[in-house]
Amino acid sequence: MVEEGRSQPLLEEGRSQPLLEEGRSQPLVEEGRSPVTKPRTLNVIGLGPGPDKWLTPEAQQALADVDHVVGYAPYVNRVPQREGLTRHASGNTVEVDRARLALDLAQQGHSVAVVSGGDAGVFGMASAVFEAAADYPDVPVEVLPGVSAVQAVAAKAGAPVGADFAVVSLSDRLKPWPVLEKRLRAIAEADLVLAVYNPASRSRTTQVADLQKLFLEHRSPDTVVVVGRDVGRAEESLTVTTLAELEADTIDMKCLLIVGASSTTVTAAGQVWTPRFVE
Amino acid sequence: MVEEGRSQPLLEEGRSQPLLEEGRSQPLVEEGRSPVTKPRTLNVIGLGPGPDKWLTPEAQQALADVDHVVGYAPYVNRVPQREGLTRHASGNTVEVDRARLALDLAQQGHSVAVVSGGDAGVFGMASAVFEAAADYPDVPVEVLPGVSAVQAVAAKAGAPVGADFAVVSLSDRLKPWPVLEKRLRAIAEADLVLAVYNPASRSRTTQVADLQKLFLEHRSPDTVVVVGRDVGRAEESLTVTTLAELEADTIDMKCLLIVGASSTTVTAAGQVWTPRFVE
Repeated sequence: MVEEGRSQPLLEEGRSQPLLEEGRSQPLVEEGRSPVTKPRTLNVIGLGPGPDKWLTPEAQQALADVDHVVGYAPYVNRVPQREGLTRHASGNTVEVDRARLALDLAQQGHSVAVVSGGDAGVFGMASAVFEAAADYPDVPVEVLPGVSAVQAVAAKAGAPVGADFAVVSLSDRLKPWPVLEKRLRAIAEADLVLAVYNPASRSRTTQVADLQKLFLEHRSPDTVVVVGRDVGRAEESLTVTTLAELEADTIDMKCLLIVGASSTTVTAAGQVWTPRFVE
Repeated sequence: MVEEGRSQPLLEEGRSQPLLEEGRSQPLVEEGRSPVTKPRTLNVIGLGPGPDKWLTPEAQQALADVDHVVGYAPYVNRVPQREGLTRHASGNTVEVDRARLALDLAQQGHSVAVVSGGDAGVFGMASAVFEAAADYPDVPVEVLPGVSAVQAVAAKAGAPVGADFAVVSLSDRLKPWPVLEKRLRAIAEADLVLAVYNPASRSRTTQVADLQKLFLEHRSPDTVVVVGRDVGRAEESLTVTTLAELEADTIDMKCLLIVGASSTTVTAAGQVWTPRFVE
């Protein structure tokens, strides 16, 4: 769900370096010369939040067809190893390096997929690929949608994002906290439901408490909060609490939070939903 | 994508009334008596934005198992007719009636799915089901996530929702316009990307122009706007324009709009993406 954490070097699995001397059928690229093959379309694929039951048939088919899969290790590892497939697993926080590796391969005529958990377009690899792709104008990029983590948590909880909502990454690694604070305040005041990606990590431990404090300035302490952890995996859990009672220090990078609107309700069975209507 | 328009009576397809006298194996419910069968879990299923390539395996399996499918006609019609399946197709704007029909059937022990286009939890049927379910405390409700229309349009365009974003239904059928206006202004000021469901209908023709005018008070006229129409279907189209040049009167209920943030960019190839970072 989250692409953040320790920075690690790119790791290639089961192949010797350099990448393009693997005895494949595509012509090798010689130093100082243009590739003789035509660049291939780079697919950017969202795998959904975990289980195969949420992997779209489109993504399944695309993954069956490619020769290279590039991504953060836990996502690459979800694509089963098979004859002819090279899996390039990288560490976290190296999204643009990862995108460049994939674009290099596609430019050289290889069939490549970049994979993300959830939907690649929602805090996944799609934006990082476009960021790097400015240097590869001859490589077409195609994004295949997937079920996002917020949808999986929402469905598990009931229908908390059934009305107007916002989706925010709480990481200040790529944007200044004052920008985030302004956005959170706007969302709180406008009574939007809020879904929070990347609420915390090993190095970011204060943002959830800051969010909680800020929201309590605008919203009732009874506002419903959903904490989804590892949703879609065997160890998944879902906690329904309130803005006042949320234990910020229990939230880590495996969590996704949904802060309800003022109208968000908990049913007798413990399910959370937000009415479509506003009185 | 949109569940709005003319109100029509509930239509049942290929079955005579009343619903529960169909010669099925479940016991009939007699007037004034409790059902003798145990209520079944009501599944609320997002079919994705159209093509089967975006229907999750989980949804596919659930639809293969149910005896009744309930929903807005264009979505019900996507579930192929088969022996033992009754499809209950209803008109638009009768979401709660539709939910009650499904809850009645599930309470009587039938195996029932309510279907929505896209993700049922994102301006689909999930909230309407919970709204009606207060009167059916013995019927468990389970929501299965799906690829939403905003994700399909975003993927088709590139990665426009690659940073913090909001998702708003522009219909004022269920909430007063001043509430919407406050939300739109907050989103515009906070520089969130905005995805707009239900931008217009036959009876609502002014909201897109109002949105455009409001956003132009806060955002540059060059702000990138994506108009997705029928995305995922044979007749799909995608238009990339700007806030100033958006032709509001060409937008109808088949469209989904994405208004970029200030950083949203168009590539040389015409793809739209929003950087993950804010300087």
